Amino acid sequence: MTMLSLTSHDVQSAAQRLRRVAVRTPLLSSSTVDELLGRSVVIKAENVQRTGSFKMRGAYNAVASLPPQARAAGVIGASSGNHAQALALAAHLFEVPATVVIPVDAPAVKVQAIKALGAAITTYDRRTGCREAIVHQLAAERGLTIVPSANSPAVIAGAGTAAWEMLQDAPDLVAILVPVGGGGLAAGSALAAAGRHPRLQVIGVEPAVADDTRQSLHFGEPVTIPTPVTIADGLGHTTPPRLTFEINRALLADVVTVEETAIADAMAYLWRHYRAAAEPSGAVAFAGLLRVVERLPDGPVGVILSGGNVDWTSYKNLLDLAMERTESHAAPLLR
Amino acid sequence: MTMLSLTSHDVQSAAQRLRRVAVRTPLLSSSTVDELLGRSVVIKAENVQRTGSFKMRGAYNAVASLPPQARAAGVIGASSGNHAQALALAAHLFEVPATVVIPVDAPAVKVQAIKALGAAITTYDRRTGCREAIVHQLAAERGLTIVPSANSPAVIAGAGTAAWEMLQDAPDLVAILVPVGGGGLAAGSALAAAGRHPRLQVIGVEPAVADDTRQSLHFGEPVTIPTPVTIADGLGHTTPPRLTFEINRALLADVVTVEETAIADAMAYLWRHYRAAAEPSGAVAFAGLLRVVERLPDGPVGVILSGGNVDWTSYKNLLDLAMERTESHAAPLLR
Repeated sequence: MTMLSLTSHDVQSAAQRLRRVAVRTPLLSSSTVDELLGRSVVIKAENVQRTGSFKMRGAYNAVASLPPQARAAGVIGASSGNHAQALALAAHLFEVPATVVIPVDAPAVKVQAIKALGAAITTYDRRTGCREAIVHQLAAERGLTIVPSANSPAVIAGAGTAAWEMLQDAPDLVAILVPVGGGGLAAGSALAAAGRHPRLQVIGVEPAVADDTRQSLHFGEPVTIPTPVTIADGLGHTTPPRLTFEINRALLADVVTVEETAIADAMAYLWRHYRAAAEPSGAVAFAGLLRVVERLPDGPVGVILSGGNVDWTSYKNLLDLAMERTESHAAPLLR
Repeated sequence: MTMLSLTSHDVQSAAQRLRRVAVRTPLLSSSTVDELLGRSVVIKAENVQRTGSFKMRGAYNAVASLPPQARAAGVIGASSGNHAQALALAAHLFEVPATVVIPVDAPAVKVQAIKALGAAITTYDRRTGCREAIVHQLAAERGLTIVPSANSPAVIAGAGTAAWEMLQDAPDLVAILVPVGGGGLAAGSALAAAGRHPRLQVIGVEPAVADDTRQSLHFGEPVTIPTPVTIADGLGHTTPPRLTFEINRALLADVVTVEETAIADAMAYLWRHYRAAAEPSGAVAFAGLLRVVERLPDGPVGVILSGGNVDWTSYKNLLDLAMERTESHAAPLLR
């Protein structure tokens, strides 16, 4: 499947499929932020999506798109947690079996949720295991269809529905910032934005320590980086998959990076101004906005807050530190 | 103005007026909660509403409904914080002056937001001051129109739009639980629900220490209670205003009460299962659901999470205590 066979039409079809399944997440805005940043900002709050992240859009669309026989036999996927939860939910809704392969150190809150949905869990070590190998072996053994977390047309089209909804509600955006892990959300968002007004840019944001997509786009080929250590546990990818890489190379305006501290500060910012609980990965695009806002073209911008699955203790500790750090330039809550 | 002149039609007109102004807040759901409580539950997340609470619906509708000359002269209102923020925003949007009268101990986060919107602030002492007297005096002195936080047809109709939207998205609800302070949200919700299917109940929930509406409905006349001390700072009313009292007497199925500890536990519950940041007043209706769920008729129920304006430190301390208390019966995050 080449990139050209996937278009904004696929995103629209996915949006139809998700109509009564996904939460139509709101756009949050804040007069204070708009004033501080000198432009109108809207936040697509996918932290209130089912399973707590945008991932259910892609997983559901992929499972819904399977031939009935393959679907009935069951699905398998690997992820740091959010795609696994999403796939577990999608399988649960279609009443088919699911197996998920997750890191042994995945956040407890994500593991519990997967278990509660009845999916079978296999764990691996991020530093030593090869999750793709495990997935392929289990898929062959059990006759399961693999639903990748990003590298699949149906998953990308489903992920793109978040930006698609955002553009329906805010058609005048000049830029959309999205976090980049496997690149499915970025690719889907870029497809959703394609063919709108020509000024519209889709910009990917990666943790500085996990910039495999930025490097790969720079070199023109997928490169592999060492396994990164980042608080953004959903974005610790080492190499961009081929399909998302090709789409992102063709359609993304830019990929920028943010430091770990800036991610935590963005979590505090999102709490302070929007009362939005973002997991670290979910705050990365907003951190990117704070970094590049001065260089964006004039006009309103959109940010995808991609998820909110974080343990209370981790959230509290990260926010406590960030609140202290940012208090000096703290501004009041206001929308 | 008698109760009979206010109908669900007024709520619908308010909804039209608010269409491009208020956030169409999402309905949150959780498979775990549904399983734990044995029924489908949806949460209307007004914590992501502009100004962080449902109050902007009523304030905006009221300011929008004023004759142009009165509106231009400016508005005044009193509240524990959320209505003041809402009125400040409404005045800001219409570019007219606003004065708000708030308790000297109103949460800092609410005070800062009001200031940032350019409203003039007058403070009073909850225990010794009479805010109504202050409001009337200032209104007369400055030629301002009073926009009450609850006791006004336009405010009630506006507040009712949250339940109205919820019933559009989930028409099969058999019960809606709403927090009761001045009773405007309860009255508006009851009006929104009137004339739907006859099984639908609207149930008010008050802090046990601030049960002026429950007592008043019991006695058939507004009674006055001593100034309550409750973590639900938005619901510390001492007597129900006449208009909301009459509507609530006619239309509410019941008013139930919840203890302070149960309110904090509900905040933790809302975080754990929905990643929703509720202020104490905003969690009261969910606390009520946990208390009365066994006695509700079979079918899906809706809960209004009315607001999220709480300082980080207060939120953290309340959640820490509640998480410890509820850990033994903790269930995983899941939607």
